[in-house]
Amino acid sequence: MKTYNVGLIGAGFMAKAHSLAYAGMPMYFWPAPGLTYRKMVADVTEELAKDAAARLGYDEYTANWMDIINNPDIDIVDIVTPNDSHAEIAIAAAKAGKHIISEKPLARNAAEAKTMLDAVKEAGVKHMVAFNYRRTPAVALAKKYIEEGAIGKVLNFRGTYLQDWSADPNSPLSWRFKKDIAGSGALGDIGTHVVDFARYLVGEISDVMAHTQTWVKERPIQTGGVDKLGTVKSAEDVPKGQVDVDDELMTLLKFENGAVGSIEATRNAHGRNNFLTFEIHGEKGSLIFNYERRDELQVFFADDPADRKGFRTVYTGPAHPYGEGLWPIPALGIGYGDTKIIEVYDFVKAIADDTEVSPNFDDGYQICVISDAILESAEKGEWVKVNKLEVTIP
Amino acid sequence: MKTYNVGLIGAGFMAKAHSLAYAGMPMYFWPAPGLTYRKMVADVTEELAKDAAARLGYDEYTANWMDIINNPDIDIVDIVTPNDSHAEIAIAAAKAGKHIISEKPLARNAAEAKTMLDAVKEAGVKHMVAFNYRRTPAVALAKKYIEEGAIGKVLNFRGTYLQDWSADPNSPLSWRFKKDIAGSGALGDIGTHVVDFARYLVGEISDVMAHTQTWVKERPIQTGGVDKLGTVKSAEDVPKGQVDVDDELMTLLKFENGAVGSIEATRNAHGRNNFLTFEIHGEKGSLIFNYERRDELQVFFADDPADRKGFRTVYTGPAHPYGEGLWPIPALGIGYGDTKIIEVYDFVKAIADDTEVSPNFDDGYQICVISDAILESAEKGEWVKVNKLEVTIP
Amino acid sequence: MKTYNVGLIGAGFMAKAHSLAYAGMPMYFWPAPGLTYRKMVADVTEELAKDAAARLGYDEYTANWMDIINNPDIDIVDIVTPNDSHAEIAIAAAKAGKHIISEKPLARNAAEAKTMLDAVKEAGVKHMVAFNYRRTPAVALAKKYIEEGAIGKVLNFRGTYLQDWSADPNSPLSWRFKKDIAGSGALGDIGTHVVDFARYLVGEISDVMAHTQTWVKERPIQTGGVDKLGTVKSAEDVPKGQVDVDDELMTLLKFENGAVGSIEATRNAHGRNNFLTFEIHGEKGSLIFNYERRDELQVFFADDPADRKGFRTVYTGPAHPYGEGLWPIPALGIGYGDTKIIEVYDFVKAIADDTEVSPNFDDGYQICVISDAILESAEKGEWVKVNKLEVTIP
Amino acid sequence: MKTYNVGLIGAGFMAKAHSLAYAGMPMYFWPAPGLTYRKMVADVTEELAKDAAARLGYDEYTANWMDIINNPDIDIVDIVTPNDSHAEIAIAAAKAGKHIISEKPLARNAAEAKTMLDAVKEAGVKHMVAFNYRRTPAVALAKKYIEEGAIGKVLNFRGTYLQDWSADPNSPLSWRFKKDIAGSGALGDIGTHVVDFARYLVGEISDVMAHTQTWVKERPIQTGGVDKLGTVKSAEDVPKGQVDVDDELMTLLKFENGAVGSIEATRNAHGRNNFLTFEIHGEKGSLIFNYERRDELQVFFADDPADRKGFRTVYTGPAHPYGEGLWPIPALGIGYGDTKIIEVYDFVKAIADDTEVSPNFDDGYQICVISDAILESAEKGEWVKVNKLEVTIP
Repeated sequence: MKTYNVGLIGAGFMAKAHSLAYAGMPMYFWPAPGLTYRKMVADVTEELAKDAAARLGYDEYTANWMDIINNPDIDIVDIVTPNDSHAEIAIAAAKAGKHIISEKPLARNAAEAKTMLDAVKEAGVKHMVAFNYRRTPAVALAKKYIEEGAIGKVLNFRGTYLQDWSADPNSPLSWRFKKDIAGSGALGDIGTHVVDFARYLVGEISDVMAHTQTWVKERPIQTGGVDKLGTVKSAEDVPKGQVDVDDELMTLLKFENGAVGSIEATRNAHGRNNFLTFEIHGEKGSLIFNYERRDELQVFFADDPADRKGFRTVYTGPAHPYGEGLWPIPALGIGYGDTKIIEVYDFVKAIADDTEVSPNFDDGYQICVISDAILESAEKGEWVKVNKLEVTIP
Repeated sequence: MKTYNVGLIGAGFMAKAHSLAYAGMPMYFWPAPGLTYRKMVADVTEELAKDAAARLGYDEYTANWMDIINNPDIDIVDIVTPNDSHAEIAIAAAKAGKHIISEKPLARNAAEAKTMLDAVKEAGVKHMVAFNYRRTPAVALAKKYIEEGAIGKVLNFRGTYLQDWSADPNSPLSWRFKKDIAGSGALGDIGTHVVDFARYLVGEISDVMAHTQTWVKERPIQTGGVDKLGTVKSAEDVPKGQVDVDDELMTLLKFENGAVGSIEATRNAHGRNNFLTFEIHGEKGSLIFNYERRDELQVFFADDPADRKGFRTVYTGPAHPYGEGLWPIPALGIGYGDTKIIEVYDFVKAIADDTEVSPNFDDGYQICVISDAILESAEKGEWVKVNKLEVTIP
Repeated sequence: MKTYNVGLIGAGFMAKAHSLAYAGMPMYFWPAPGLTYRKMVADVTEELAKDAAARLGYDEYTANWMDIINNPDIDIVDIVTPNDSHAEIAIAAAKAGKHIISEKPLARNAAEAKTMLDAVKEAGVKHMVAFNYRRTPAVALAKKYIEEGAIGKVLNFRGTYLQDWSADPNSPLSWRFKKDIAGSGALGDIGTHVVDFARYLVGEISDVMAHTQTWVKERPIQTGGVDKLGTVKSAEDVPKGQVDVDDELMTLLKFENGAVGSIEATRNAHGRNNFLTFEIHGEKGSLIFNYERRDELQVFFADDPADRKGFRTVYTGPAHPYGEGLWPIPALGIGYGDTKIIEVYDFVKAIADDTEVSPNFDDGYQICVISDAILESAEKGEWVKVNKLEVTIP
Repeated sequence: MKTYNVGLIGAGFMAKAHSLAYAGMPMYFWPAPGLTYRKMVADVTEELAKDAAARLGYDEYTANWMDIINNPDIDIVDIVTPNDSHAEIAIAAAKAGKHIISEKPLARNAAEAKTMLDAVKEAGVKHMVAFNYRRTPAVALAKKYIEEGAIGKVLNFRGTYLQDWSADPNSPLSWRFKKDIAGSGALGDIGTHVVDFARYLVGEISDVMAHTQTWVKERPIQTGGVDKLGTVKSAEDVPKGQVDVDDELMTLLKFENGAVGSIEATRNAHGRNNFLTFEIHGEKGSLIFNYERRDELQVFFADDPADRKGFRTVYTGPAHPYGEGLWPIPALGIGYGDTKIIEVYDFVKAIADDTEVSPNFDDGYQICVISDAILESAEKGEWVKVNKLEVTIP
C-alpha cells in the first residue's frame, strides 16, 4: 500500500480537521486506497509552525510554505489558508507536480479560480476542493436516491446555510469581513456549500437572481491574537473598520434542466448555528436534510400507500453510502471530523486509481463563476445568466 | 348581550369552519362580546342549501343569496364562496348595511378588491377578511414578542406555505386552477396567508421580486360532483383542460422599514401538508413557527447567558394571547376550528365595540396589490415596487 | 334524522368541550347518525347554571341535577362533575332509562365503578366513558395498523402522561388532590388515559408493578372562586391542607398476550404540558405517538428496504380514521375539541344503531380495577395480579 | 510533554474508536496533558494483529496479549476485548504497573469486577472504564446545570437505551448473546450506559425493581468470519443455539437522595438505532437528552417568565464543557469519535496530574453491583436493595 506524504499549509481549525482525517482514514476505510503520512506543516511563523507540528502530528515544520512546494518527498499539498493565498499556493504546487486539496471557496473570484484550474490541468495532477458537507453520508444518500429516480424529476431545490456567530456587531473585523482577502462574505464562506449541494444534487445552475445585505457595516479592528475562526476577542472600544462584504444573501435560481430553487445564507441569524439545509421536491417525492441533525435524511415517496405516506427519517449507517467504513450501527454519530475522513478517502482513492474526484477545481471554478453572478445580480437587481464552463457533474 | 343574525353564503368546507366558530365562540370567550345566531344559509341549489342548513345548524336556507342580502334580520353576511363572487356579494351586502366577513383572498385582483373596499367604507359597516392563521395563538404570541422588542429590530422574514394536494397531475381542474375564478393559483390560495403574516409581523412590503411556475399545465376537466376542496374525483381518461395559474411561487421581498425577506408557496411539494411557516431574524433574537405544529412557537433571545442559549419551544396556553378563552393548560391542542373561533370572537367584538378589526378589507386590498405586483414581477423578471395604500397595520 | 336531547351535569371546562362537540358533530359527520339538542344544564347554583346555559347554548338550566334525571324529554345524560358524584348520578340516570356518557375515571375505585356498571347493564341503556384521547385520529390509526398486522405481534408498550401544572407547591389544594373526591391523583386524572391506550392498542393487562410518589405533601387550601381546572388562584399565606393522593406514578406491566410495558404519569414534570405518549414495539415494526404533536403518528416497518428504513411521520387526514368527517387535507389541525366531536359521533351512532361503543362502562370499570391494583402494588412494593372482568376489547 | 506508550488489546470496532482518539486528542486539546504513542496492538492471530497494526497505526503487533503486559515500554493498557477477558487482562496489567482503560461493562458480574478493582487499588495505577457517552458535551452540560442548581433538586430520572440490531431472529448468536462471555445481554451491553448516566447525574441507586425479557430464544450459531459487532452474516439454515441473556430490561429505581427513576434498554426496538436518552425532572426545571441528536441538550427553567417558558434546545459548542477543545462554533457536529477523544483526554490528564478520573473501576464495579441487583430482581420479581460500595460520584 502506497504512502503519500502530505504537506499542510495553514494551521487553523481546518488544519485540525484535515489532520485528523489523515490519521483516521485507514482506521475507517480498510484496506485503504493508500496511506498518508503527515510530513510537513507550514504556518506564518516558525514558532507557530513548530507548535502546529507537535499538535497535529507532523514530522517537520516551516514558516515558509515554499519549503513544502520544493520538497520532493511531498506528494499532496493541502491548502487551509485564507482565501487570498489559495491561488498562489495552488499554482506553485501544481507546477511542482503535487496533488492538491484546497479549502473552499477555491478563490476570491472566478478569474482567480481560472488560473488555478488552468495550472492543475496543465500539470496533470489530482485536485480537489474541500466542500466536505456533501460527504455527509445523509447527503450522499440523497444523491443516491435522486440517481435511482426515487423522487422523480427534481422540480425545486431550497437550500439554506444559517449561522449566528457574526450577529454580534462587536465581533471583530477578521479577514472574513474583508473583500480583498475573502472575496465575499457569507456567500463565499458558507453560501458556496449550498451552491455545491445544488449542483451536486440537481444539476448546473443557469440563472441567478440575488439580494445581498450587510447588516453590520463596521466592526472593531482586530488588534490581538487570532482565534480559531480567524477572529480576535471582541472589544467595544477598539477602533472600527469597514465591512465590505455581504452578511447575508438570498437568491432565486434556475437550473439548466428546468428545475428552480432558492438559496439563503447568513452568519447573522440568531439561534442558528450550522443550519445547512436543503429541501428538494421532485415529481415523485421529496428530500429534507439539516446538517444540525446530520445523521438523518428525510425522504417522502409519493407512491407509498395512501394511509402510510409520510416522511421517513432515515438514520444513516452501514446500509448507506460510506457505511462500510463508518460505525457498525446507525446513529453512533457522524461528526464534523467524519466528513473530512471521507473526503480524504475519496481524494486518496482518486490519486491511487488515477481517476477524477469531485468536487475538483472544475467544480470550484464553476462555483466561483456562480458566486460572481450572484454578486453581479445583487448589484444590478436583475437576473444574471451564469457563464458556464463545460463540466460534468459527478 | 346582543345577538347578531348571520347569513352564510356558500356551503363548502369553509362554511363548516365558520359555522363551528359561531357555535363555539361564546363557549370559549365568556362573557362574549355578543352572541351569533345562525339564521340563513345560501347554496347553489335549494337541495344543497337545505342540506347545509341541517348540517350546519341554520334556521333557514335559500338558493338565492340575495335573500340573505335582502333580509332585514340579518346583521352579518359571511362570504365563503369561490373568489369570483366575493366582490358582487360584498358590495351588495355593504349597500344593505350588513357587516361583512369574507374568505380570502379578498378578490381576484386589486382593482376588484378596491371596489369592495370602497363599498364598505361608504357603507360604514364592519369588514374582515378571513386570514385566520394569524389568529393561531402562537402567531399572535410572535406578534406580541416583536411588539415588546424581545427580538429587536426585525431584519429578515422567511415564510413558506407548502402543500402537496395538487402534485398529482390527475387531480382535477377545479376552480382553483382557473384564473377567471381564482385570480391566481398557489399565490391567492395559500401564498396570501404568508403575505398576511409578513405584513402583520414585520410591516409593509415595498418591493417584490418573484418567480412563478406551473408544473402541471393541464388537468382532467371535472365532470362529477364537487368534493370539499372544490374538486372532483380524479379520472385519467376524462378530457383535460388548461391550468392558467401558478402552481408555485418564490419571491424576494423588501420591507419599508428596511427588513428583507422571502416567500415560497406551492401546492406541489410532496410530503408537505399544511406547512405554513415563518422564521424571523431580528437584531436581538429569532422566532420560528410551523403551523403543522401550531401549538408551539420557538423563540431565541440573544441576551440569554452564553451557556444557556437556545431556541425555547413555547407551548401556547393560558399565559399567551387568547389564552383566557381557550383550554386550561397548554397543549390540550389548537385545531383549525379554534383559529376560526378566535376570528369570529374578534369580529363580533369589533362590531359590538364599534372598533376596527384586522385584517380587514384595507388589508385584503393591500394584499391584492402585493399579489398583483408579484405576478407582474414574475412576468417581467424584475423587481416591482408595490403601490401602497396608506393603511395602518394593527 | 332523530334528535337526542342532552342533559349536561356540570359546567367546568369539560362541559365546554362536550357542548362544542354536540354543536359541531353534524357539521363534521354528515349525514349524522342523529342530532343532539342541548336541552338542559345543571350546575351547583342557579346563578352558575343560568350562566352556563347562556354560555354553552342550553335551553334550560337547573341547580338540581335530578331535574335532568326526572325530565322525560332528556335522552342523554352527560356527566362532567368531579369523580365522587359520577356513581350517584349515573345510577340515577340509568334507572331513569337515559343513555349515559361520563367523564373519566368512571369512579373513585373499582367497587364504586361496579355499581355503575351493574346499573347500566340492568337498565339496558348505552354507556360510554370519555377517554377521548383514543379518538385522536393518529391513535385510531395506530389501532388500525396493529389490527392489520403492520407491526406484527406487539412486544412492548411504553406510555407516559406528563404535565407540570401541579409542580408549583403553591398551586392550591383543589379536589384533584383529595382522595375522598378524586379517588387517586395523577393516576386517575391522567394515568388512566394511558391505561386506556394500553388496553385499546395491546390488550388486557394481567399484572402490575407500581411506585407512586407524592412530591408536594401539602398545598394551600382553596378559599376563593373555582377556576376551570377546579382550582383557585394560588396564595402563599393561606392555610395548608394535606395532599393524600399521588403526584406521580411509575409502573411495569404484563399483558395477557405476553407483551410487557410500562406507564409513567405525573403532573409535576416541569416543561411537559400534555405529554401523552406511547411507543410500541412489535415483531415487525414500531409506532410512536405524542399528543403534543397529535396530528402525527410515527410508524416504522421492519420490512422496508434496508437503505430506505426509517420512521414515517404520517400526518393524519382524509386517508385515515375519521378522515371523512374532519378537514379536507392533513395537518389543517386536530384540536382538543375535535377529539370530543368524534367521541360524540361514535356515541350517538351507537345509540342510533343500537350497538356497543367503546370505551364503555365495562372498560371504565376494568380501568378502575387496574387502578386499584396499581395502588395496591405501590403500597405493597410487589407485583399484583389484576382481577379481570371478562370484557371484550374492541 | 510526556508521551505515553499505549498497548491495545483487541481489534474490533472499539479498537478503531480508541485508536482514533489517541491520534486526535492533542489536535483537539492543546497543550495536551500528554501525548500518546500507539506502540503495540494484540489480536487473536498474528495475521489479524498485523492487519490491525497497519490499519490502526501501531508500531508493533502480537497474537499474545501478554507481550503487551510484559513490555516495559508500555505505559497504558487499553482493553477492548469481549467481557470475559477483561478481568484476566486488567489484573495482569495492574500487576505490571500499567495504567488501564477498559471497555464496559467492567466485568461479567460484581464479584469479577471486585477482583479487578482490588488489583488496581493494590497496584496504585490509574484506571478508567469506558462509559464514553457521559463525555458527550451535552451530557456533561446536563451535569453542570444540575451542579449549579439550575433545575433544583432532582426528583425523577428516566433513561432509555433502545436499539434494533438484534430484532431480527436470524441475526446470529454472537458472544453478546451468551452469558458465559457477556455476563448479561442488553443490560451489560447498553443498559449499563444508562446506569452510568443515572449515577453521574443523580446519585447512587439504592433499590431496583426489574423485569427482563428474552424475545428471541435461539439464534443461528455463527460459523464464519466475525464482523465489526462480533457477529457473522445471518443464515437461516445454520444450526441454532440458545440465547441465555436478556434482550430487554425495564426497571424502576430509587436513589439514595430520594429521587426515583426508571431505565429501559433493548436491542429489539425496531426503528431505534442508538436511542440513548434521559429525561430528568427537578424541583425547578427539567433536562432532556437524546444521543441520536447528541449536539443538543434541552433544558427547561421553571422560573422563566410565564409567557416565555419552554424547553431551550442548547446546541453545545465553545461555551459548554470541553468546548475549548472541540470546534469553533456549535453544531459543526459531535460524532462518536469525539466522545472517545474526550475520554482519552481526561484519562491522560488524570495520569499526568496524578488525579482520579471518573468513571473508574470503582464506578465500573458499582455498576456491576447494580447490574447483579437488576438480574436478581428480575428473577425474584421483587425490589432488591443495592449493596453499595462507598464511592464518591464525581
